[in-house]
Amino acid sequence: MEIDLKSIHSPEDIKGLTLEELRDLSEELRAHLMKKLSAHGGHVGPNLGVVEATVALHYVFDAPTDKIVFDVSHQSYVHKMLTGRIEAFIDPAHYDDVTGYTCPRESDYDLFEIGHTSTSIALASGLAKARDLEGGKENVVAFIGDASLGGGEALEALDFAPTLGSNFIVILNDNQMSIAENHGALYEHLAELRKSNGAAANNIFRALGYQYIYVEDGNDLRSLIHAFESARDTDHAVLIHINTMKGEGLPVAEAHKEEFHYTGPFDLKSGAPLVADNAEDYTDIFAEHILEKMKADPKVVTITAGTPGAFGFSPERRERARKQFVDVGICEQAATGLAAGLAKGGSRPVFGVMATFIQRSYDQLSQDIAINKLPAVIVDFAGGVYGIPDMTHLGFFDIAMISNIPEFVFLAPANAEEYLAMLDWAVGQEEHPVLLRTPGGAVTHTDRPVNKDFFRYDVVDEGEEVAIIGEGDFLATAMKAAEILKARGVRPTVVNPRILSQLDTECLDRFKSYKTVITLEDGILDGGFGQKVAAYLGESPVRVVTLGLKKEFLDRYDVAEVLEANCLTPEQVAALV
Amino acid sequence: MEIDLKSIHSPEDIKGLTLEELRDLSEELRAHLMKKLSAHGGHVGPNLGVVEATVALHYVFDAPTDKIVFDVSHQSYVHKMLTGRIEAFIDPAHYDDVTGYTCPRESDYDLFEIGHTSTSIALASGLAKARDLEGGKENVVAFIGDASLGGGEALEALDFAPTLGSNFIVILNDNQMSIAENHGALYEHLAELRKSNGAAANNIFRALGYQYIYVEDGNDLRSLIHAFESARDTDHAVLIHINTMKGEGLPVAEAHKEEFHYTGPFDLKSGAPLVADNAEDYTDIFAEHILEKMKADPKVVTITAGTPGAFGFSPERRERARKQFVDVGICEQAATGLAAGLAKGGSRPVFGVMATFIQRSYDQLSQDIAINKLPAVIVDFAGGVYGIPDMTHLGFFDIAMISNIPEFVFLAPANAEEYLAMLDWAVGQEEHPVLLRTPGGAVTHTDRPVNKDFFRYDVVDEGEEVAIIGEGDFLATAMKAAEILKARGVRPTVVNPRILSQLDTECLDRFKSYKTVITLEDGILDGGFGQKVAAYLGESPVRVVTLGLKKEFLDRYDVAEVLEANCLTPEQVAALV
Repeated sequence: MEIDLKSIHSPEDIKGLTLEELRDLSEELRAHLMKKLSAHGGHVGPNLGVVEATVALHYVFDAPTDKIVFDVSHQSYVHKMLTGRIEAFIDPAHYDDVTGYTCPRESDYDLFEIGHTSTSIALASGLAKARDLEGGKENVVAFIGDASLGGGEALEALDFAPTLGSNFIVILNDNQMSIAENHGALYEHLAELRKSNGAAANNIFRALGYQYIYVEDGNDLRSLIHAFESARDTDHAVLIHINTMKGEGLPVAEAHKEEFHYTGPFDLKSGAPLVADNAEDYTDIFAEHILEKMKADPKVVTITAGTPGAFGFSPERRERARKQFVDVGICEQAATGLAAGLAKGGSRPVFGVMATFIQRSYDQLSQDIAINKLPAVIVDFAGGVYGIPDMTHLGFFDIAMISNIPEFVFLAPANAEEYLAMLDWAVGQEEHPVLLRTPGGAVTHTDRPVNKDFFRYDVVDEGEEVAIIGEGDFLATAMKAAEILKARGVRPTVVNPRILSQLDTECLDRFKSYKTVITLEDGILDGGFGQKVAAYLGESPVRVVTLGLKKEFLDRYDVAEVLEANCLTPEQVAALV
Repeated sequence: MEIDLKSIHSPEDIKGLTLEELRDLSEELRAHLMKKLSAHGGHVGPNLGVVEATVALHYVFDAPTDKIVFDVSHQSYVHKMLTGRIEAFIDPAHYDDVTGYTCPRESDYDLFEIGHTSTSIALASGLAKARDLEGGKENVVAFIGDASLGGGEALEALDFAPTLGSNFIVILNDNQMSIAENHGALYEHLAELRKSNGAAANNIFRALGYQYIYVEDGNDLRSLIHAFESARDTDHAVLIHINTMKGEGLPVAEAHKEEFHYTGPFDLKSGAPLVADNAEDYTDIFAEHILEKMKADPKVVTITAGTPGAFGFSPERRERARKQFVDVGICEQAATGLAAGLAKGGSRPVFGVMATFIQRSYDQLSQDIAINKLPAVIVDFAGGVYGIPDMTHLGFFDIAMISNIPEFVFLAPANAEEYLAMLDWAVGQEEHPVLLRTPGGAVTHTDRPVNKDFFRYDVVDEGEEVAIIGEGDFLATAMKAAEILKARGVRPTVVNPRILSQLDTECLDRFKSYKTVITLEDGILDGGFGQKVAAYLGESPVRVVTLGLKKEFLDRYDVAEVLEANCLTPEQVAALV
């Protein structure tokens, strides 16, 4: 029977269906999902793996009265299809109507904006406690993947939730994968549970007081519905462990799970990307360079917290790195503590991490690394305005966050040559914790020799009366603005500040007699380096203009629009003089 | 036999002792420890509980070749006594020679500056990995308490460490207490393990791949030595669960574990404090006020992450709060996620937390609360220069950290009346995440009616040409500086900014025509509100002077000295005009 997906406006519309109809529905949803994903890109494996689980969830529970919280929520596409947003999945003209994550701005069925892992159990425990205080009876469900379960907030809350002593349901979606392969002892344990069909003597969930239910085929609707129904309206904590297939139903995704975790548009049959991207890439530049260093020095260790691809560590490169590459799982805190321990032990740790995720280890950066003045190197990726434009993955808060931690040297290179020179310096020195920010946007090169005194600003172009200080990617903007000004007879000094955690006061002192100093910052203005410059020059009559991004959570923004809105185009900068 | 403690210069000096002599040594150490603690104050229960375990550690392992990492390290006093620092524990003139935590500046036996919980396993895993890369053979030991084990970084690393596949020893010091009673399902499990003498069928540590060893009497030297020897030189991960008595040997400490976790000087027999402290206290003011609110509104919920005393929630007050008080254990991340969930569920969560610990949930503040614009209220304590002067517990980074997170309203009241008015507003509104900073120093009061438009600066004294903007505790400094200036014929405008996360531009615009604006900030200058003011006024000719603390990790500082070093006395401020 063919199901008319357009007739599904809410979960109410599937509650009357037979098991057979639900199966047909699932196939229909999967087919449309594959069509959209192959044409549009997105999280392929995670969503294809939970088609049946999501159908079963909405068949058994009564959202939005019952509360379902999806961890990371990159697997919530089918949920969106069943909760009034089907058009965004079946009509190409509406593909972009929805975000890639749960989004309360879209629907009351979505409880939170979520994009970082490991938050669902804590958030759900708050919903459950609020319910208990109100005397409510609704079910509260946290839907979390095996990889996300290893994150600190998830483990803390897994420990806490049973103490509520009331209805609380965790659905553990075990697809045996993180973005890449899983790491951590927990996964050995999950394997043991799967192998024993849930009957292993040792059971970490039972040890924590959960009623434990195992579903061997997590893509089988009947088993899922049975398990969910048995937990519905429980008066205690239940964990349902479902064994699903990541990428289910799409052979290339089942076969290449890491590649098809998230991908751009691709050919459904061959899996080949539809958009060739052969542009030079900072992640490749970084990975090849650090691999050379690792080869030359067995003490150099690269660390990832479950996102090796984010800094170029493909399976092939991981193979080359061997024991000098460590994946701790999605555990930025442990990764940071590990880096501190490695540095103390005489190794040269390099932790590669997305700018949006490094904020998960603020306390470890401060306590484990900075207070101990350990020469651990953090290299962050997708920082700044050219990073990921999703609200939950923004990369432009790192300067404000990390440059204000004492002892941390925050370096922002402006081009590939400076980037690698800074990396060499960071890995070679033994005095400072270092945050090296990978430049954003297209790779740029310079013929100019790199000035390696990174604690001093680099004056790129000597002028007078006006100084434009452009950090990182925005040095190019500063230089373009200078060109425009030169055509008008103004010859500004152009500065590449490079170090954002402290000022080069000797350089700045020269500008006290200038008319105008403009700072350009690829991050939020608040707490950034421009405000430090302004404060330092505050006692001088020089006019200081700080430009950068507004402190706000943008969502799916257009870079050019954001730059213009913040007066960050070369023309706008020039016009300020 | 009496042991001459002065003859113990290093662990080498105890390795030849018999068991009987080790017992005598332990008694001797405990007696001196009690004497110092009662005269000087410090962490009483944690240290008295691990006298034997520490003696056994240093008897069995060969530090500093073998690496021992103490979690939190507030239980490292006996370790210090055995590693060349005995004088600081037996000679009152030298009591202050050592810090209260492990400190590499003091001794090579101390590997890290540590003061926050839950870091030891991750740090040790780094030491172990560095050893493995070097082909070393030393033992790596993480010594962690049961309460610390529930923290995110600890759980992440507990999961990770066995995957190293090499020597790794966790000693779990189970004294059945956090600072207050333990919370979390894990503690039920530990109770089960203790009850079964380590033989419970379900074993979370075995599930994670650890060899598990249980020591029923963790204050018995023979058992401890036997267990440690059986793990020494292991080639895999071992967890030794030792059941100790917090406060062992001191009846008042055994009987009143929460009170004697940390205390000032006290009478050894009665336990009565030697220094009466009847001064009015912001924690009491807060606790009594919020309890009234909780009584009036069952939706108000107070949350702690294992430190109820830090904001006045004594056992008696917890009893009064009943179900409206939640202790999640030392899990700031889960506490923050819980607060987000509660706010979403319609409750009014108030998370009370030390300023030094709120940084443990940066990502949750940003992702769980701020992105979702949830009206969760965080009240932090011991923030600013009047907070805790230990390097690992500094409270003056909170403004830079939190005020730069979008959506967060950061409020800094200047006196008790403003504090409570802000608390009322924060709990009553439904629009904003709020960080309310409890004032530091002695409680101050005002007769002036509180201006409740907290998004606007409050002009406390109208003057001309000079503005002094003093936030929080430093409003008093601003007012005193103004008095000095008035005596010199200058009449400055004095401003209480109250909100530090955004500017009151209307107020600041008035100062563009002033000669001088001075900002006083009880936090580091970098990333703070003063730099925002300076940047805003950077385009105007007005001279702006930003005063605040230098970005550095101070240790055991004197407040008056720090204020003077940063030009923050009223006289110094006045002299700037």
